[in-house]
Amino acid sequence: MSKNFSLNHPIVEESFRIIDQEVGQHNLSLLEYQIARRVIHSTADFEFLDLLKFSPKAIDSGINFLRNQTTIITDVTMVKQGIINLVSKTFKNSIITAIEKAPHALPQKTRTETGLLKCYQQCPHGIYVIGNAPTALLALCQQINEKKLKPSLIIGVPVGFVSVLESKEMLATIDVPQILVEGRKGGSPVAAAIINSLLILAWESNH
Amino acid sequence: MSKNFSLNHPIVEESFRIIDQEVGQHNLSLLEYQIARRVIHSTADFEFLDLLKFSPKAIDSGINFLRNQTTIITDVTMVKQGIINLVSKTFKNSIITAIEKAPHALPQKTRTETGLLKCYQQCPHGIYVIGNAPTALLALCQQINEKKLKPSLIIGVPVGFVSVLESKEMLATIDVPQILVEGRKGGSPVAAAIINSLLILAWESNH
Repeated sequence: MSKNFSLNHPIVEESFRIIDQEVGQHNLSLLEYQIARRVIHSTADFEFLDLLKFSPKAIDSGINFLRNQTTIITDVTMVKQGIINLVSKTFKNSIITAIEKAPHALPQKTRTETGLLKCYQQCPHGIYVIGNAPTALLALCQQINEKKLKPSLIIGVPVGFVSVLESKEMLATIDVPQILVEGRKGGSPVAAAIINSLLILAWESNH
Repeated sequence: MSKNFSLNHPIVEESFRIIDQEVGQHNLSLLEYQIARRVIHSTADFEFLDLLKFSPKAIDSGINFLRNQTTIITDVTMVKQGIINLVSKTFKNSIITAIEKAPHALPQKTRTETGLLKCYQQCPHGIYVIGNAPTALLALCQQINEKKLKPSLIIGVPVGFVSVLESKEMLATIDVPQILVEGRKGGSPVAAAIINSLLILAWESNH
């Protein structure tokens, strides 16, 4: 815990103690639990303990590529805002945001999906963080299946009622390092909490 | 529903139909439900139907003051990002963000609380939206009790495990128009959803 201290506010440390106490036993690995705990801290929703799914190489890949200053691509600006502070204090990765690349949507597409098409070209091996737009996650999965890109890691946690389940189910069939939230839940704070946890794990193991 | 159409993406409309179907009967008023539905849309968490509490004048006050271009004060940047798009399409209210006013925290205070002290002076009658920092909500309540400001509306939905319950309980004792989420849940997307709903209600009744 003390190694986190410089990056975690004392209020976060105190919250973690409360969460540890209330969670008690669980089936996650040590590193998976550190991520789950920060997601619970951001949402006050203990369901995420069961909903978070990690592919075998996801955490290692995330730590290594964050440390190597791999570019982070977020779907929406709220996700960027949630990570920019910790990124600037650690590895200073570039962050690009799909929706900011698309003032207007292409026909039959959302703005986020339209913007993501530009990010692929700029950054085929980036860390992709989808906290809001299932259309962006679906498009990302299609591009991977067509071998147009190979992300270092995908955080697949869009939230909502339309295309969200389908996008996560499609992601789960793809052989790429990934962390996802099963079901309809997710969102920008969940996405930000996952990246922030990985940044802290990467920073700890570096210092 | 059709009156919302210009401000709501078709995916949002489809999500609302699914939520309506799954919620079925409820005890909220028509306008309260429109706000709750957008919060559920942003979180995929139906618990908010029971957790949201509205003071009698909260929605009317929100609609009127948003329409009159009252300044909106948010605690954190993620809340601002969540509302800036709809604000710019409707009443173009100024948005100021507490944490951006405080590069450094005052002793014994968080950065958000420090920044909020500056916002009070600039804007004693603003619409205050607290989606993250219970310290900011506690400080806001103290200032109201000391009659140093009289907000038009408070959205009190900080999230987490430390001081969150206390801050919401303190808000509930104060005679000010308010919308709050009981318990530990809340967050930036919840705060943004509430303001965005109020903006749409205000816009609809204006056009």
